[in-house]
Amino acid sequence: MRQGCQSWVFSSQPVIVSTGTVGGPFEARGALAKDFDLLHEDLWLGQESYEKAEKKMLEQACELALGKAGMKKEELHFFISGDLQNQIIVSGFTARTLAVPYLGLFAACSTSMEGLSLGALLLESKAAENVLVGTSSHNAVLEKQFRYPTEYGAQKPSTAQWTVTGAGAALLKPEGNGPKVTAATIGRVVDMGLSDPFNLGGAMAAAAVDTIEAHFRDFAIDHSAYDLIVTGDLAKVGHEIAADLLVKHGLQIPEEKFKDCGLLIYKEEQPVHAGGSGCGCSAVVTFGHLLNRMRKGELHKILVVATGALFSPLSYQQKESIPCIAHAVVMEM
Amino acid sequence: MRQGCQSWVFSSQPVIVSTGTVGGPFEARGALAKDFDLLHEDLWLGQESYEKAEKKMLEQACELALGKAGMKKEELHFFISGDLQNQIIVSGFTARTLAVPYLGLFAACSTSMEGLSLGALLLESKAAENVLVGTSSHNAVLEKQFRYPTEYGAQKPSTAQWTVTGAGAALLKPEGNGPKVTAATIGRVVDMGLSDPFNLGGAMAAAAVDTIEAHFRDFAIDHSAYDLIVTGDLAKVGHEIAADLLVKHGLQIPEEKFKDCGLLIYKEEQPVHAGGSGCGCSAVVTFGHLLNRMRKGELHKILVVATGALFSPLSYQQKESIPCIAHAVVMEM
Repeated sequence: MRQGCQSWVFSSQPVIVSTGTVGGPFEARGALAKDFDLLHEDLWLGQESYEKAEKKMLEQACELALGKAGMKKEELHFFISGDLQNQIIVSGFTARTLAVPYLGLFAACSTSMEGLSLGALLLESKAAENVLVGTSSHNAVLEKQFRYPTEYGAQKPSTAQWTVTGAGAALLKPEGNGPKVTAATIGRVVDMGLSDPFNLGGAMAAAAVDTIEAHFRDFAIDHSAYDLIVTGDLAKVGHEIAADLLVKHGLQIPEEKFKDCGLLIYKEEQPVHAGGSGCGCSAVVTFGHLLNRMRKGELHKILVVATGALFSPLSYQQKESIPCIAHAVVMEM
Repeated sequence: MRQGCQSWVFSSQPVIVSTGTVGGPFEARGALAKDFDLLHEDLWLGQESYEKAEKKMLEQACELALGKAGMKKEELHFFISGDLQNQIIVSGFTARTLAVPYLGLFAACSTSMEGLSLGALLLESKAAENVLVGTSSHNAVLEKQFRYPTEYGAQKPSTAQWTVTGAGAALLKPEGNGPKVTAATIGRVVDMGLSDPFNLGGAMAAAAVDTIEAHFRDFAIDHSAYDLIVTGDLAKVGHEIAADLLVKHGLQIPEEKFKDCGLLIYKEEQPVHAGGSGCGCSAVVTFGHLLNRMRKGELHKILVVATGALFSPLSYQQKESIPCIAHAVVMEM
């Protein structure tokens, strides 16, 4: 089970039997639109608040994942979820709808892979028959919560990122058809002393590199073990810093196999500043686009390194720097 | 490993080799003062904000637990923690200080037992060599965040609870001396449609009963299996409702063995309304008082059922009801 200092091997190879991905209008015009199961033109999803719209999205992602596996809510065993809304209410309310044993997480934008790691651990240790892992983010909710309400039309620097409106869910079972979760590396908090909430990619880059380095060390491998190594939401600024840091640490990854979900999700011409971010970013790109590519046989073994900035608006106002973390999961087809 | 629908058995019996508990001035005048490792007369702990004071408390609880086990920070393998501050920054900053692989949780006041369950699972499945589990709450931080800044002197109804200023940490190892974690029951979200943040105990009571019922069902036992069954922070109102509901479900627990951390922690004459609450409540009472009683041989087998209200000030303002959850852990000496 344990491998090196920070990693786990799942020798039972839990299978991602189905996934559900839901996006908003910006994602519908993005580069990966065809990989979503459901896209909404209305940022409100017909709800009376953005917060409730996000809840609806996560519920839909869960329904989609369960539906594709032909599974009823009642057959679900465990739900593991987290999000960025204060007190992760999106996950709490979705857990209420699902009405099954629920483990709530907070790992900011690294939630998708913390959840997938723990979900696989539950199956590996036979603590669960099946596990649904979910997470979400909503642009208008999180801009309001972390920066300014979008209605203010506040300007942002080019280092800022665009919060993905999206929800992703993955259903894990001990057996079945689909990509397998074979290993995970749990990250440590890394804090470079940066404190600019308009440059989170820059702050998170070192955490991504720390986890990639730990992963390579724990398994005594290098990038050649993977077809693709994908970070969560470093976007343009963070991705370049991470690439530089990897070179410095003697771990250079060839450009064509080192990608970032925040750079993959939108089109070049979309006004998303440095790129995508949010819990939903790595979730929809991984559970949608990347797993689709695996199912098609285009990718055989990937490492997804979801990155999270563990700050709050209040910690920023109190002049704290931004602690960051990254959790990595190996998926094989 | 799995037992029934919601429970886990830890046959390797991970040991709580040491604990650290820190409290504030109200706790120092409480009924369990002698069970704390460290008590502060200053609610600020010499810090420049209450938020930073809470971080200091959690760091101290972790240091105490590690110190008692004669363990250096560098020997720690995993840290699992959560708290009630937005984006659980107390846990994130403490994880930065510890600099070890970190899993962030959010389970509101049920965090202590979600953390202990997952910590035990990591050891049971040999995913970790040792795990430090932590959580905390701070009265002035959470009154401000969830209700009003304490400086306003806002009046509260008698159903309201008093957030415990306290931090608790427990160090788990595969072997050693101390109480063992032998089983856990992971709760489902239960929502009775209540929406009064000044009566959280009332809202959480049904979740506690749901988990106790699931626990008894999964193990085919009743209260006679335990010396004590202790809920997290139902306080006066919630405790009475829970006791009534248990009778209704045919699961009556004798008064002398059904207790609540929120009722144990303060003295009758302290102006704490219905009783204690907050993530720190079940953590300091369990990791301090209850484990001390086990170590002294006064208790042999207990069930701690930590209760959490999974709402946010915003979900309350948007007229959502309060989803609640409870996670239960069996400890044996």
